[in-house]
Amino acid sequence: MNYFVLFVASVEVRFTIMISSTELKRLTSLRQGKYRKLHGQYLLEGVRLLEEALSAGVKISKLWHQPEDEQNDLQKSLILSAVQKGIPTEETTADTLLKLSDTVHHQGVIGVASLPKPAELGSSRGESLLYLEEISDPGNLGTILRTAWWFGIKHIALSLQCVDPYNPKVVRAGMGAHFNLSIYTRANLKELTKLGHEIVAADQNGEPLKSLKKISDPFCLVMGSEAHGVSEKSQALADKIISIPGNSGADSLNVAVAAGILLFTLFDKP
Amino acid sequence: MNYFVLFVASVEVRFTIMISSTELKRLTSLRQGKYRKLHGQYLLEGVRLLEEALSAGVKISKLWHQPEDEQNDLQKSLILSAVQKGIPTEETTADTLLKLSDTVHHQGVIGVASLPKPAELGSSRGESLLYLEEISDPGNLGTILRTAWWFGIKHIALSLQCVDPYNPKVVRAGMGAHFNLSIYTRANLKELTKLGHEIVAADQNGEPLKSLKKISDPFCLVMGSEAHGVSEKSQALADKIISIPGNSGADSLNVAVAAGILLFTLFDKP
Repeated sequence: MNYFVLFVASVEVRFTIMISSTELKRLTSLRQGKYRKLHGQYLLEGVRLLEEALSAGVKISKLWHQPEDEQNDLQKSLILSAVQKGIPTEETTADTLLKLSDTVHHQGVIGVASLPKPAELGSSRGESLLYLEEISDPGNLGTILRTAWWFGIKHIALSLQCVDPYNPKVVRAGMGAHFNLSIYTRANLKELTKLGHEIVAADQNGEPLKSLKKISDPFCLVMGSEAHGVSEKSQALADKIISIPGNSGADSLNVAVAAGILLFTLFDKP
Repeated sequence: MNYFVLFVASVEVRFTIMISSTELKRLTSLRQGKYRKLHGQYLLEGVRLLEEALSAGVKISKLWHQPEDEQNDLQKSLILSAVQKGIPTEETTADTLLKLSDTVHHQGVIGVASLPKPAELGSSRGESLLYLEEISDPGNLGTILRTAWWFGIKHIALSLQCVDPYNPKVVRAGMGAHFNLSIYTRANLKELTKLGHEIVAADQNGEPLKSLKKISDPFCLVMGSEAHGVSEKSQALADKIISIPGNSGADSLNVAVAAGILLFTLFDKP
């Protein structure tokens, strides 16, 4: 009798709806910038990021998740919220989730969202913003976006040479910042100068941050890459050049750390 | 005649000394903490890091490099410096360098260095230090070390739950900080309180950083992980609890960015 029960248990079959190979191919292609542009979509992975997206009203077209008996409570609750908001959800295999994932272990849930309409630089008029030049490291860009969000900056302008802000690594490090910022890509600092911001560039040879008099709001903080700093061309457009002096022989600060210190000091709004 | 020349050129044979499989196995094992402890060594990859190590007088036992005709000028000059300092250098294949590398592309040069003798907490007496609790992300730990170095902090104490500071990713993100700091591992905050530092813990519910009166030197800044913050036990040992208030609905700051802001504000030494 025991053998019979064992036999019945062993033939339990799990039916998981398979994602079509065409759809899987299209989704994995979203890990690359040109396909994100082509399809106007990007990927959002993990409970925390998807929760932020849902609460910010981001348009999520679909959400894939692992089978119910493998879900933790946070994942279950996220999927329920998505269903309640009318977002199509679909169970899929760990293998598929891993193919879509940007990390070594998938996070059980992944969604696809529409890229927001490109913001117009003009809409930053009257409000402070951060202009980034040649920030190519996705983790650094994401961390800067997260920091800007924390301090209440609403506008981020990226030069043409910056990494795509919808690159999965940038989105992951941003931790929800993307849904709460206006991001201007292919931005031109010269055009920006027409909007009336005080332009403040960060450079190792600038005026020490702590000796600065108050900077007038709205202003535009300009930061460059760790390797090259703010270009001479952009420095020439700046009203002020500031620095974060160190006390040692160290070469430089991480650009996201420098951005945090500058935003903390300058963008001090109630 | 031309054919003959071509023939001669084509039989040029490159003799690259092969690293023995035993040595390669031992070296790759250094990417794991337990083998670093076992052998008392760690890996240093890339020109910039090795240059910092050489100029800080780090004991490098050996340096491997790619063949001369594949080296760039920076690599050549580094290898020359190493030779002048009496460090054994050896040519090896791209394949071997990639096996030793922590990144997707090897950086042409990699060295093995002796782990420094564990520092004694007592030697931080009279000087400010940074105590880190459960910082498990290697990139964050490395960036914090780099930031501490920049601001002239000399002492870093790590709780038992922190990632190993000689993990290759930490070393890479540290960008030379390791050679210029005293790093105390398995540190205990309670023991530290006996050394007379003012203990200042960072927590979201603490006193806002900008309203702080000057903190007396020497002090010990305590920071926890992004997920858990500073433990209640450690907060109970603190003389002061401080925070970096945000102006938005964002969840938290990146821990390395927060460390940068706190160190910039507090450790303001000439």
